Amino acid sequence: MRSGKILVAQGGGPTAVINQSLAGVVLEARRHEGVTRVYGARHGVRGIVDEQFVDLTQETSHNLELVAGTPASALGSTRDKPDLAYCREIFKVLQAHEIEHFFYIGGNDSADTVRIVSEEAAAAGYPLRAIHIPKTIDNDLVGNDHTPGFPSAARFVALAFAGANLDNAALPGVYVGVVMGRHAGFLTAASALGKKFPDDGPHLIYLPERTFVIDDFLADVKAAYERHGRCVVAVSEGIHDASGQPIAAQLAKDLERDAHGNVQLSGTGALADLLCEEIKTKLKIKRVRGDTFGYLQRSFVGCVSDVDAREAREVGEKAVQYAMWGDRDGSVAIRRTGFYSADFTLQPLGAVAGKTRVMEDEFIAPSGTDVTDAFRLYLRPLLGSGMPDAHRLRVNPVPRVLRP
Amino acid sequence: MRSGKILVAQGGGPTAVINQSLAGVVLEARRHEGVTRVYGARHGVRGIVDEQFVDLTQETSHNLELVAGTPASALGSTRDKPDLAYCREIFKVLQAHEIEHFFYIGGNDSADTVRIVSEEAAAAGYPLRAIHIPKTIDNDLVGNDHTPGFPSAARFVALAFAGANLDNAALPGVYVGVVMGRHAGFLTAASALGKKFPDDGPHLIYLPERTFVIDDFLADVKAAYERHGRCVVAVSEGIHDASGQPIAAQLAKDLERDAHGNVQLSGTGALADLLCEEIKTKLKIKRVRGDTFGYLQRSFVGCVSDVDAREAREVGEKAVQYAMWGDRDGSVAIRRTGFYSADFTLQPLGAVAGKTRVMEDEFIAPSGTDVTDAFRLYLRPLLGSGMPDAHRLRVNPVPRVLRP
Repeated sequence: MRSGKILVAQGGGPTAVINQSLAGVVLEARRHEGVTRVYGARHGVRGIVDEQFVDLTQETSHNLELVAGTPASALGSTRDKPDLAYCREIFKVLQAHEIEHFFYIGGNDSADTVRIVSEEAAAAGYPLRAIHIPKTIDNDLVGNDHTPGFPSAARFVALAFAGANLDNAALPGVYVGVVMGRHAGFLTAASALGKKFPDDGPHLIYLPERTFVIDDFLADVKAAYERHGRCVVAVSEGIHDASGQPIAAQLAKDLERDAHGNVQLSGTGALADLLCEEIKTKLKIKRVRGDTFGYLQRSFVGCVSDVDAREAREVGEKAVQYAMWGDRDGSVAIRRTGFYSADFTLQPLGAVAGKTRVMEDEFIAPSGTDVTDAFRLYLRPLLGSGMPDAHRLRVNPVPRVLRP
Repeated sequence: MRSGKILVAQGGGPTAVINQSLAGVVLEARRHEGVTRVYGARHGVRGIVDEQFVDLTQETSHNLELVAGTPASALGSTRDKPDLAYCREIFKVLQAHEIEHFFYIGGNDSADTVRIVSEEAAAAGYPLRAIHIPKTIDNDLVGNDHTPGFPSAARFVALAFAGANLDNAALPGVYVGVVMGRHAGFLTAASALGKKFPDDGPHLIYLPERTFVIDDFLADVKAAYERHGRCVVAVSEGIHDASGQPIAAQLAKDLERDAHGNVQLSGTGALADLLCEEIKTKLKIKRVRGDTFGYLQRSFVGCVSDVDAREAREVGEKAVQYAMWGDRDGSVAIRRTGFYSADFTLQPLGAVAGKTRVMEDEFIAPSGTDVTDAFRLYLRPLLGSGMPDAHRLRVNPVPRVLRP
């Protein structure tokens, strides 16, 4: 006799479409005969060990649809990374509530949590189906063509750089935009999709897949500035030197950034400010501006790729179908089948858990500061429909009168 | 005999809709009999003295419509603030090209340029009509209900805070978002329009119209954090102490921000980082994140208020009509006539030139850290149609089993 109880939770950094996956799980689960209750845990694994559950069976379909269209984890999230002991606590709670299907929407750390819980259940002979549902704006899950959340964040980054390029063309100077993504450059590389005309920015793109050398950076900026009279630069927050040390830490060495000598690498504008300072002092360029896109790129309301929204919904739906009919644990993955079309598979949890995908070499130009056409073809369909476009006045010069 | 030549230029910081005003001037001008040429100056007044003109008469209506929908000054802009000598150079070029109508789209500095050029022409007995067309995301032009560009930037800020609030609710902590606007708090105050539920952020709003006291700020943050378990804060880049000194400069005093001891107040994340550092060290709160919205808020492609776009078009159109039929110089102004409806008038250049409007007291709550309903009613219709909404799961708690 099965209990028919399902538990779903959300972990890690929120995305614009993570609630689509939640709605996908809940709405699909409620279609299955034998499912008696769909619980949601508040704040991910933290809410499981604290037994903070809400009954999503009592939620209306209409409100679930509205929540699906709202960014950031509706159940709340957590940064907890459970170890074995923590996972045993999780398993204990699942047992106590007679939960037989566990769905965790998150990145590679969340996949690892699902893997350990799955193994604990198997060892105890407890009938649990545990499925990991992919989610991360970093696009760094192995075995996936891309991950839900990334396309919408990429759309934000592409549109932000399209705008920054127009702004920079109107008031020329150097503009540095720092983008999230940790060790994976996909989101920073998305800046290239904001380009339309050959002289549009970003003129330079710095990815964590390549070693960052400050002198090369300055030489690149100088050359682009001399060529275009301006320069737009996209920089990943994860850029590092040959030894793997983050650039922000390296640049800040001599600067005594704060009263304690600390350097923060995220949630601050430090890296953009340090790079701007280098450009100003070393290249003697006056108008240098730096923006750190920060939390806007993952939670801005109203910037969603419709392709991303649909797929995020589908991975939630497929997770329930795999659990109900597949009778095996795993991680849902997106596979590309056409231009553009996607399908879903279930990979073993061990294949994705704790692993990090970075940008493939075929996506990075030989210069190391641009993307390839292969990347443009890869990303373009994911950005979704209705991408705004930038237009220019045509060139019709008027002859000078005073100084011909 | 009149030459029938018109010149239009764009000055100051770009906005999302400044090209609507450009299109409004050009398309309206081309409807008027006797207008033989419509010139545009590249990069504002700088392009006038350099005689860098493009012939917009040869532009297609279709492309003008597409450019109208593109953010940031299509003609290019400048930060030059002309003095009398500079304005005489401008006037000399206008004379040389036999330009009889001059339209300058910009803020209060641009209005001042138009005023001086207008006076020079009058003194010389030259038949020039000079009209200033309002534009600024700061919303700081006197005599206007609001200024074109502000509503779209306000929409960005409201949606950014709606998203930041959802993100902060999912992963609780303190979030500080720094917003543009210089000495006027309107754009920062727009963050309040991102609130839906009573416990939504921003929980605190700091405007340049009120003196910023760091100890009060810390006490406010502490109280909000204790009440909500989290805290979202909107801060204007222009906050200052009782003596008028910018807070960033004050906080940075002991910190030696860079190799030269300089503190930048815009185009950097310095203020957000300094405030976050204060919160972390003084309040011992761990998760503190700061974002500086930077250039995204004025140039992000795809975040436009349709009301703003329409009005920006209309102020350009009206400027031409006033010049052609009104036969007097001035600055076009927006007046509110209903909820929501607007009309346009022509104010004397001297009434707006070089003056700065700040937020009226009726818009600021007695606490000094919130807006009033009067402000919400003022701003809401300007944000335009199709404002995305945020939705929550309803509360259906499940009883605990292990620790009831």
